[in-house]
Amino acid sequence: MDIAKHFAGSKLDTSSGKSLYQQIAGIIAQKIKSRDLPPGTRLPAERDLAALFEVSRTTAINAYRLLEQEGLVRTRVGSGTYVAEQPAEGKEKEVPWTQLFKSYNQSYASSVLKDMVSASYSRAGIISFATGEPDPYFYPVQALAELFKHHIGSTSKADFGYIPTDGYGPLRHSLCEMLKGKGITSRPQEVMVVSGSQQGLYLLSKALLEPGDYVVMESPTFLGAIQAFQAAGAKILSIDTSHPHFLSILEDYIIRYRPKFLYIMPTFQNPSGTLLPLKERQDLLALAARHRLVIVEDDAYGDLYYGQAPPPPLKALDSYGGVAYLSTFSKILIPGLKIGYLAAPAVLIKRMAFDKQYVDLNANNITQWLLHRYLEEGRLDDHLAIVRREYKKRRDAMARALRRFCENLEFDFPEGGYYIWCRLKEEGTVSRLLHEAVNSGMSFVPGDAFYASAAPDKEFRLCFATHDEGIITEGVRRLGKALSAIKKEKKEVSRPLPGPPIV
Amino acid sequence: MDIAKHFAGSKLDTSSGKSLYQQIAGIIAQKIKSRDLPPGTRLPAERDLAALFEVSRTTAINAYRLLEQEGLVRTRVGSGTYVAEQPAEGKEKEVPWTQLFKSYNQSYASSVLKDMVSASYSRAGIISFATGEPDPYFYPVQALAELFKHHIGSTSKADFGYIPTDGYGPLRHSLCEMLKGKGITSRPQEVMVVSGSQQGLYLLSKALLEPGDYVVMESPTFLGAIQAFQAAGAKILSIDTSHPHFLSILEDYIIRYRPKFLYIMPTFQNPSGTLLPLKERQDLLALAARHRLVIVEDDAYGDLYYGQAPPPPLKALDSYGGVAYLSTFSKILIPGLKIGYLAAPAVLIKRMAFDKQYVDLNANNITQWLLHRYLEEGRLDDHLAIVRREYKKRRDAMARALRRFCENLEFDFPEGGYYIWCRLKEEGTVSRLLHEAVNSGMSFVPGDAFYASAAPDKEFRLCFATHDEGIITEGVRRLGKALSAIKKEKKEVSRPLPGPPIV
Repeated sequence: MDIAKHFAGSKLDTSSGKSLYQQIAGIIAQKIKSRDLPPGTRLPAERDLAALFEVSRTTAINAYRLLEQEGLVRTRVGSGTYVAEQPAEGKEKEVPWTQLFKSYNQSYASSVLKDMVSASYSRAGIISFATGEPDPYFYPVQALAELFKHHIGSTSKADFGYIPTDGYGPLRHSLCEMLKGKGITSRPQEVMVVSGSQQGLYLLSKALLEPGDYVVMESPTFLGAIQAFQAAGAKILSIDTSHPHFLSILEDYIIRYRPKFLYIMPTFQNPSGTLLPLKERQDLLALAARHRLVIVEDDAYGDLYYGQAPPPPLKALDSYGGVAYLSTFSKILIPGLKIGYLAAPAVLIKRMAFDKQYVDLNANNITQWLLHRYLEEGRLDDHLAIVRREYKKRRDAMARALRRFCENLEFDFPEGGYYIWCRLKEEGTVSRLLHEAVNSGMSFVPGDAFYASAAPDKEFRLCFATHDEGIITEGVRRLGKALSAIKKEKKEVSRPLPGPPIV
Repeated sequence: MDIAKHFAGSKLDTSSGKSLYQQIAGIIAQKIKSRDLPPGTRLPAERDLAALFEVSRTTAINAYRLLEQEGLVRTRVGSGTYVAEQPAEGKEKEVPWTQLFKSYNQSYASSVLKDMVSASYSRAGIISFATGEPDPYFYPVQALAELFKHHIGSTSKADFGYIPTDGYGPLRHSLCEMLKGKGITSRPQEVMVVSGSQQGLYLLSKALLEPGDYVVMESPTFLGAIQAFQAAGAKILSIDTSHPHFLSILEDYIIRYRPKFLYIMPTFQNPSGTLLPLKERQDLLALAARHRLVIVEDDAYGDLYYGQAPPPPLKALDSYGGVAYLSTFSKILIPGLKIGYLAAPAVLIKRMAFDKQYVDLNANNITQWLLHRYLEEGRLDDHLAIVRREYKKRRDAMARALRRFCENLEFDFPEGGYYIWCRLKEEGTVSRLLHEAVNSGMSFVPGDAFYASAAPDKEFRLCFATHDEGIITEGVRRLGKALSAIKKEKKEVSRPLPGPPIV
């Protein structure tokens, strides 16, 4: 063994106060620290080490144990003892990773979504109406566990290997069936499974957007979509769909900027909760067809109506082949399935599947398989009936509580979805309100997160899906307390204007 | 009802040969085709339609049924009957989607990976050694189904909601434990879960590569990595790690091009099956540390050794903080879990998590949770023992069959992993061989797919993991037949040189 030469001149001192295993460890440690034995060097087997120093095997074992405790060696099962990686002597020798990072053009707002997700984990005691998250209580995980157990024996295991990028075949068929119920006729090659609807937005951006392209979006709109399009370098044109001349403004945008597409949530919009009436849908489609304007329709909430069913999706009314339809099971079933889907012309699906092979090759097979079984057994309708019934109660409870506890606040009563969009009567107060609200033990998302450009500081979004009526009422009571606090503060202190900004 | 006016002048002819419901359907059809009733228009309820035409309700129902069969209307449960979207009159009215697509700089080779995945689905009767896919027979799906059922009751359902972008907390802890066994010490903030290792490559590219950056790669190397880096606009510098002066060539590259990183598979490389010895690992790290060269170490196959355990991963020997370690459960467990992971400096993990929020927000929770349970119960080691034992037999069977059936063919006997890398003695024959092989009923991947630039047309890759020994032997027998066929063909026909290319 070549390594023995390192220890040729080393002698143990039997009269020393140090035990033999400590002395051996000391000798080896010195060689490691001086890099005579560089990281990864395989050290002698215990038997050989014992022979080398003419000690018992136990002594050799103890020497290695001591070195391991000191972090100098590492034992790998079945492989032996190696010199461990050593911390660099000085920080200046470490690689400065941030120097290597690609530069960004995203604003600070980009991490709001991540923070929202993290926040729902971290703040105990806070009643959060911030994240648009379904109530975990309704997740049919028990049913999924039973489906898994029941069907696993009769399923081809190859379904859990590598599968096509555009999705698990049987699930794409189930999705076509499901889409029929929404009035959308699609063949499997016009349907694609994605890893959540966020990925749908990402792949749409990747396929369609070049830096400098224009995209028309509602104002306010879904934060994740703003971020996805801006990250792709797109410029956002904002449009208020409740404006009486909304279509003529859109036509001006089309003519002036030739936008790549219009992104719209016609049914129970996030964050405003509004619904685009049938007549407006028809007029919008007629305008879009005339200009060959592509529409990306995001329909995450369409199944969650609490009264009459909404009008058909734009995709169901599309006679010019210009609508790409995107939806997800995260809001109606379980976010953890991570399954969204698109219905769009086959040529677009093909292009997106091409891009997806780089991004993650295919969406998760196990949950695609589970969801297919779930849909096939017709369980979704029963589940939807339950969540519609329960979320309706929650919407009503939140609206009642808002009327009872919150003065100086306006809101539209939504016919479906997850959100109540609130407006304060006075501008410039939402950030102060959030601060007070968190102190009172509740939270929400300030409205400006939903605008691509400057926004009035008077709006905010409440999600009523996550908590039961009791918690909702208590959360809104706390909101009311926060509202009173900022009102009082205003009366008491007449603050001077802030000085000029420091440039 | 406003819509009634459309039918005001319409009269039914009771003496006509046509039944009443056909006449009503005809009237409505005409209004739809003329666009007096545009797509999405809500038609009168059956009861109202009956009243309008003074017919029975059954007649009204039958009229709508006929229209539905003709694709002119669509009935939505709980919502009524609507005018369906109509096919555009002429193709020229449809949106030409491909005009909208972002332009590409990827070559035709980009879809090879997708084709390989699809191919394994489509060709029955062909023994494919092409895809690097584990044998589904070993997928422990039954164990997962039981774990799911067993633990679902005692798990917080919130784990199936939105979770942190960098991964499910308990799984990141399990991964740290697992990494310890490989000699890698990582804290949870230095570990990240990704949606398969393909996504790891994608996110690394997204974080680190700007168009025009250089990346050093082994030659040959993993096709998916070549594609990921090229798609990000990187230029590939190729290096043959078996070259005796490999490190000095690498140093020249470093000095000349300042590459962003070296991508390397030191253990049971794909496609060559080679193993970088410990001494070379140490020397490589010393060189990299001196130049602050970042190394991306891909270790998908390190656990699949069929003799002695391999030397520690580069990451375990990294003393300068420059190694990002990437691995996956796809090759050792189930591709369908879609779980890969990285161990890297916290600052890189943070940046990649930031990017991942756009791509898919987080990896699949349900399989992250399942995998965590699986690791926690210590089941992976038993599984690895099984697949090591079985894949060893398959490697041996393939090597035996190659020696027996295939003349004019050289290969290196791999100590682990999935692949045998074959070389023909004569150049310019692999594409013809593949053609013959598919005719004989087997397939493989031609070697040039694993090169970033011009490659010798004499190599190809066989995967021995997917089939049992009997099928492997038969597949290689067919390969031998194909080899004989092209040899014979060569003897018989002395083809003239092809003419000049048509420019």
